[in-house]
Amino acid sequence: MTNKTLMDHLNWRYATKKMDPAKAVPQEKVDAIIEAIRMAPTSSGTQPFEMIVVTNPDVLAEIRKAAMDQAQITDGSHLLVFAAWDNYTDERIDAVTEANVAARGDLPMLNAYYDKLKQTYVPRDAEVNYAHAARQAYIALGIGLVAAAEQEVDSTPMEGFDPATVDEILGLKARGLRSVVLLPLGYRDSSADWLLPMKKVRKSVETLVSTVD
Amino acid sequence: MTNKTLMDHLNWRYATKKMDPAKAVPQEKVDAIIEAIRMAPTSSGTQPFEMIVVTNPDVLAEIRKAAMDQAQITDGSHLLVFAAWDNYTDERIDAVTEANVAARGDLPMLNAYYDKLKQTYVPRDAEVNYAHAARQAYIALGIGLVAAAEQEVDSTPMEGFDPATVDEILGLKARGLRSVVLLPLGYRDSSADWLLPMKKVRKSVETLVSTVD
Repeated sequence: MTNKTLMDHLNWRYATKKMDPAKAVPQEKVDAIIEAIRMAPTSSGTQPFEMIVVTNPDVLAEIRKAAMDQAQITDGSHLLVFAAWDNYTDERIDAVTEANVAARGDLPMLNAYYDKLKQTYVPRDAEVNYAHAARQAYIALGIGLVAAAEQEVDSTPMEGFDPATVDEILGLKARGLRSVVLLPLGYRDSSADWLLPMKKVRKSVETLVSTVD
Repeated sequence: MTNKTLMDHLNWRYATKKMDPAKAVPQEKVDAIIEAIRMAPTSSGTQPFEMIVVTNPDVLAEIRKAAMDQAQITDGSHLLVFAAWDNYTDERIDAVTEANVAARGDLPMLNAYYDKLKQTYVPRDAEVNYAHAARQAYIALGIGLVAAAEQEVDSTPMEGFDPATVDEILGLKARGLRSVVLLPLGYRDSSADWLLPMKKVRKSVETLVSTVD
């Protein structure tokens, strides 16, 4: 139980630049972060991505090379790889329908809903479907960032990597997946992280928000 | 102050299907949700989206027509429209640099970093840049969903709308913005919402997560 608010978590977290390689995140904290990601809402409940949790040092070193040598990948203890579906297929949507029917009963509306989804999604260009799936992974990323902060675990969302190389390292293509974003988990090295003492920069409400009332 | 965890919020929330039009979300709760969205992390701190908060009934009715007649748009009291930048431009990135310099000081590394970002982003195809900006809005969407739940405010993320029409209704094109996702805020009508009593459906950890250790 915590008495911290979402704002506390958002203020505590930052894109950690230097992690302490001597400190590993306990498995129960990793599990709690994964559980929040698993509960993240997605479009039509499809959850069109998978998570690959990498702890193997050799694999982490390879991924680091494909990610502009960012040290958090090997200094952190766990790397979460968000990998989106490369396309929507009948089989994938059927599996979603089956899970819904198993949990909620064999309701005609469920079958009709997902039949329509298949008719809409499956004929679309694979790139359009991948782009849509990747966005869903970003909802989960946002929630995962909050989950890590709640666990007082540091994390660094990373887009600066070569997806094709990471896909190859992890064998994602054969699984119909494409790496979207990386999230190393670890603990900040407070004495060596240049970003930690810096002020958080955000646009003003006036810049970001307008109203139509 | 709350003693609820992120998991409590994720379990409490659901994609509300029927909102009570008689109940309006208090402004301070809307402000708290917007504040969390404002603090959401984004790629290189660009925050490449704006939020339009619509409460005008006529405008809400027009948007509802462009959104498959989904009633939450008018039954909710506030509609958050996440609108991503249609492109990265020198001016937009310069404004980010200026905000960083104002908060952190005129550090050579800041200027160098954002100069490189401009060189990378600005020549790219506008669609690539918009897709990237839209993903950042989805991080904020994920955090906004948690924020709403923390405020015990119901919300329904919506992709089922015609973006071009919504852009026209809100005059977004002239502002270099494209609507990405809608989030009506309101209060569930517990007696009339067919989804509320249904079990939440999520894939198992085994289905969603694999490890490389």
